[in-house]
Amino acid sequence: VSEIDDTCSLWVVAVPSNAVREVAERLPSGEIRVLVASKGLEVTTAKRMSEVISEARPGAIVAALSGPNLALEVANGVPSATVVASANQEFTEWVRDRLMSRSLRVYSSRDVIGVELGGALKNVLAIGAGMSDGLAFGDNTKAAFLCRGLSEMTSLGVQLGADASTFVGLSGIGDLIATAASRLSRNYRVGRALGEGIELDRALNEVGQVAEGVPTSFAAVELANRTASEVPLMRAIHDCIRGTIRPIEAVGMLMERAPRAEF
Amino acid sequence: VSEIDDTCSLWVVAVPSNAVREVAERLPSGEIRVLVASKGLEVTTAKRMSEVISEARPGAIVAALSGPNLALEVANGVPSATVVASANQEFTEWVRDRLMSRSLRVYSSRDVIGVELGGALKNVLAIGAGMSDGLAFGDNTKAAFLCRGLSEMTSLGVQLGADASTFVGLSGIGDLIATAASRLSRNYRVGRALGEGIELDRALNEVGQVAEGVPTSFAAVELANRTASEVPLMRAIHDCIRGTIRPIEAVGMLMERAPRAEF
Repeated sequence: VSEIDDTCSLWVVAVPSNAVREVAERLPSGEIRVLVASKGLEVTTAKRMSEVISEARPGAIVAALSGPNLALEVANGVPSATVVASANQEFTEWVRDRLMSRSLRVYSSRDVIGVELGGALKNVLAIGAGMSDGLAFGDNTKAAFLCRGLSEMTSLGVQLGADASTFVGLSGIGDLIATAASRLSRNYRVGRALGEGIELDRALNEVGQVAEGVPTSFAAVELANRTASEVPLMRAIHDCIRGTIRPIEAVGMLMERAPRAEF
Repeated sequence: VSEIDDTCSLWVVAVPSNAVREVAERLPSGEIRVLVASKGLEVTTAKRMSEVISEARPGAIVAALSGPNLALEVANGVPSATVVASANQEFTEWVRDRLMSRSLRVYSSRDVIGVELGGALKNVLAIGAGMSDGLAFGDNTKAAFLCRGLSEMTSLGVQLGADASTFVGLSGIGDLIATAASRLSRNYRVGRALGEGIELDRALNEVGQVAEGVPTSFAAVELANRTASEVPLMRAIHDCIRGTIRPIEAVGMLMERAPRAEF
């Protein structure tokens, strides 16, 4: 990729994850450069977005962008940090140096799997954090939930080939904190509505935009099944989305497990 | 400690950290059992609370309690989780089983150093999170700050003998999230006031209670100096507390470092 330079074109894919395959199929063939900012997993295949693009365009060099980046804040120049990851270090650093600005710090990573899984799975957990607030639980409850959620995200990610350290970074716990704390997050708002006892369809309608965590919860449970990973929180959130249990039952279930060591 | 049973007495020390040594010196001598819930470092020695108690009462068996436990919420029965740690596993489990209740889940740990450092250092970082909000930055900024803060806390802790994994748990990132997100946190509120340009004395006065992060910032910088650990965020917070730089300068400084890999 020695021909990568300032004049080469870069395709940025930032559509909802369920549209990424279709969009990728419309891109030119050959050795194109793609940066994917969509956060999710394909619901039918449980594949990451860079995998979907590479399948649709086998010649493409693909990097993923992920981090605690509420779009409205980035657009308004609020100081933010993010991570760009690809298997091609030269391309990663090229993207990094071009996105870096006075208000956006960009870090590079080689762990595409971890960076993409963090961005996808935190949307599922943000629904759970919203549920906790919707049930009028406290900051203690939400913090404990996010901790155990981080642990689930990490163990599932490691089973799938990610580095554990990535989940402690911006694209893991960083994005989880921003998404789970913010009224701007659609996933958090859908979860909050569910916690308040509102039906899923009405909750999605009220948010009025895509809540990626809903379809991603199906893919997350599928990945957990394939790798025999224990993900009780993600499973409980998924069950609440499917309507097979109520949020209050999920919390009771999780608080009543037997005493044990933390690690 | 085979004589530990339901009838033995337990001393619970939960005073501000600057009073722990004095309180410990008033405890009986001999093989007493102590649970310390104070979160901080002794400002003159940079010692952890269990170290201070063991110095004052060499025969004592000491466990530390730490986690995302805003007191008002625990008192109100809000679902919460916490960690108890000591070098004596039998004692740890004895304490754990007695504190466990319908609304409080208690995990056990052997990493006293990590559990105590998490509880102490998060108060310093919560001041920084408050500053970020006081400067009217966004959720993106605060999430990025907490991520890098977690990384500082972990590397300093590991230098001091803690397990890295403890900082990803309830007493590390868990407590950091709860403290940095909550209007109930005194440290967060002091930081917020500093970010708004209020002087430290007036900020402390307005909060009207002890903000442990202020004295702990001195001890944290001392520990970083001793171990040659890089803690730019904690140092910047400490400098804002001492009044040698202003919060807005600290943020500018941290955003302008050279591009690099995340890990």
